[in-house]
Amino acid sequence: MKVNENFSKMPQSYLFAEVANRVKKYKEAHPDASIIRLGIGDVTLPLAPAVVQAAKRAADEMGAAETFRGYPPYEGWEFLIEAIRGYYASFGVMLNYGDIFVSDGAKSDAGDLPDIFSADNTVLVPDPVYPVYVDSNIMGGRRIIYARGCRENNFLPTPADIEGGEPDIIYICSPNNPTGAVMTREILKEWVDYANKLGAVIIFDAAYEAFISDPSLPRSIFEIPGARECAIEIGSLSKTAGFTGMRCGYTVIPEELERGGYSLNKLWMRRQSTKFNGVSYVVQRAAEAVFSPEGLLQCKKNIDYYRGNAKIIAETLDRLGIYYTGGKHSPYIWMQCPNGLGSWEFFDYLLESAGVVGTPGAGFGSAGEGYFRLTAFGSREDTAEAARRMEKLLSR
Amino acid sequence: MKVNENFSKMPQSYLFAEVANRVKKYKEAHPDASIIRLGIGDVTLPLAPAVVQAAKRAADEMGAAETFRGYPPYEGWEFLIEAIRGYYASFGVMLNYGDIFVSDGAKSDAGDLPDIFSADNTVLVPDPVYPVYVDSNIMGGRRIIYARGCRENNFLPTPADIEGGEPDIIYICSPNNPTGAVMTREILKEWVDYANKLGAVIIFDAAYEAFISDPSLPRSIFEIPGARECAIEIGSLSKTAGFTGMRCGYTVIPEELERGGYSLNKLWMRRQSTKFNGVSYVVQRAAEAVFSPEGLLQCKKNIDYYRGNAKIIAETLDRLGIYYTGGKHSPYIWMQCPNGLGSWEFFDYLLESAGVVGTPGAGFGSAGEGYFRLTAFGSREDTAEAARRMEKLLSR
Repeated sequence: MKVNENFSKMPQSYLFAEVANRVKKYKEAHPDASIIRLGIGDVTLPLAPAVVQAAKRAADEMGAAETFRGYPPYEGWEFLIEAIRGYYASFGVMLNYGDIFVSDGAKSDAGDLPDIFSADNTVLVPDPVYPVYVDSNIMGGRRIIYARGCRENNFLPTPADIEGGEPDIIYICSPNNPTGAVMTREILKEWVDYANKLGAVIIFDAAYEAFISDPSLPRSIFEIPGARECAIEIGSLSKTAGFTGMRCGYTVIPEELERGGYSLNKLWMRRQSTKFNGVSYVVQRAAEAVFSPEGLLQCKKNIDYYRGNAKIIAETLDRLGIYYTGGKHSPYIWMQCPNGLGSWEFFDYLLESAGVVGTPGAGFGSAGEGYFRLTAFGSREDTAEAARRMEKLLSR
Repeated sequence: MKVNENFSKMPQSYLFAEVANRVKKYKEAHPDASIIRLGIGDVTLPLAPAVVQAAKRAADEMGAAETFRGYPPYEGWEFLIEAIRGYYASFGVMLNYGDIFVSDGAKSDAGDLPDIFSADNTVLVPDPVYPVYVDSNIMGGRRIIYARGCRENNFLPTPADIEGGEPDIIYICSPNNPTGAVMTREILKEWVDYANKLGAVIIFDAAYEAFISDPSLPRSIFEIPGARECAIEIGSLSKTAGFTGMRCGYTVIPEELERGGYSLNKLWMRRQSTKFNGVSYVVQRAAEAVFSPEGLLQCKKNIDYYRGNAKIIAETLDRLGIYYTGGKHSPYIWMQCPNGLGSWEFFDYLLESAGVVGTPGAGFGSAGEGYFRLTAFGSREDTAEAARRMEKLLSR
């Protein structure tokens, strides 16, 4: 019996544990200190009323013989797939019914998609980045190469920034976690053309697309010509509709996307039908309600609230003349640490001098050193107070 | 870019598609025929009222700022883990809190558990068996060997029935799908001792344990001494509480279970925290209600209903003198096809002569040839009528 030795090659991430540990120590030393957490990566506003009502109606249906539903279809119930198609159509992307697979969350899909690819592939990830892409591919024994983000490329690396060879699989997250940077159509087109030239596949994580308000910025990779020949897109309701605790996402694999004579859509269907049994009916009905006219309006109100928080932080940094990305079409603000401080040095300074907690950028990859992530998921009052304290501290 | 070539090694299962196809053809030829389906593998009774109420309360909580919950813990909410511990304690199995991982279903866990094992392992599966064990391990590139069930061993193979070498990973499903056969303590002890001697790991699928009413039969492998040193158990609420459409299960990995210096419990936690983000709060509250006193009583009523159906079929076969397994502590009845008929021959005969649809045993593995699966998930009326028709047909 041999365990999967690749597990020991995964970097142990102590990021959030170390953040919690430092905050705890500070609190013990300063029991009366008022601490504001701008490191929260989770939503805080409750579900929209339309969503709650839909979930309750679905629960009632499951309790009555005439309306009870057993195993869901692997790819999701028709009503939700059609709602997702309608959502995409609202910003001009036409998907086929068979392109869409409903799941229990974008993280599951990001982690499980590598199942359909050979271990003998090279995977490109941007640096800094959400750690799931790296970890799930190390677990599968794949080689990882990087494209580094930096101030010079505004944390939007292009194929010219690739180090270490040619990739077979390319992860892109836009709006990015943690940098909040959003790819323009031009940059995304560069990636699509590059992937098509190489025969690579792009896995495009669109988890934060609902934060984009500028119609000139792409919300889906399928707005880019040629994407249906090279791209898979992962969507999430976590940030769109506060579904972090409800668990629903989806993956779009164009029916015509093929590699080596295999339909990737069919491989994913086989993977899902073998290792997955679909998403709860109650959750799928709740998700359907997100895309109803009332649901969209109610969810937009919540997103606008978070956008308002982001704006407060961004404008503070503007006044301070501190370089940052994100904050406009993203719940994340990725700021350069002032005075050349390292990520953890700035973390300690901000905690000890202003009682504000953020996330050290170095925790998201080596290219994150010297940067710091703030999030817009706190309350308006806390966010405004944290911004005041930062302005006072850093304008000295 | 290379796809995972192991996908092409997975056997294409046309079982249920072929069943549907033959039924369709028969209906077209005989539009007025009354057809009864005893091939259903899905529950048909609605959720228990306590479960529906819990789901609705949870949905309301998600809609209010004070009670909203975001990302669930990867291993499940404490209230549900404690409820599962209490359930196990009710039949005498004491689990540690840290042993239990809540999931979106037993199938996901059965399919994903191989992630923590090297591709270089030999996997033993019983034949006939639920196809997920075989398919998910072929997908991962592992060698499969079999232990054949037959009339001589009452479809309860022991280590003496292993063909093809020594296994590293052993799947056991008891009560078994499709045979309904339930392992005695003695046979299960043989497997535990064998695994401990070899250093192998048993993955014990207990999805149908709630159908066991004889306290001398083990409902959990952890009733067997030595199991904590070699076994992982997968549990499901699908058949226990009609959760096929709700999606909730759990996996038990003893904290002390180690192989090659690695804690399998910690490897699974790492797998889940990397590729999974927990189960919906609404679903977890519904699952908690299954284990409440009202919930247990209400769910038992449903199980008793299915048991009653199984009894009707089993007693019919008893009167006919037809050999079968299951039917007593299982929703499945696994009958030998009369007169030496093959599985598909008997399928056609039963459909054409009695309008009864079942599932050909050959679809669950080569050892299933000559056998036929009937299920207890239909209505009482349909089941009784199907039994009458079979009795009339086969007693000729």
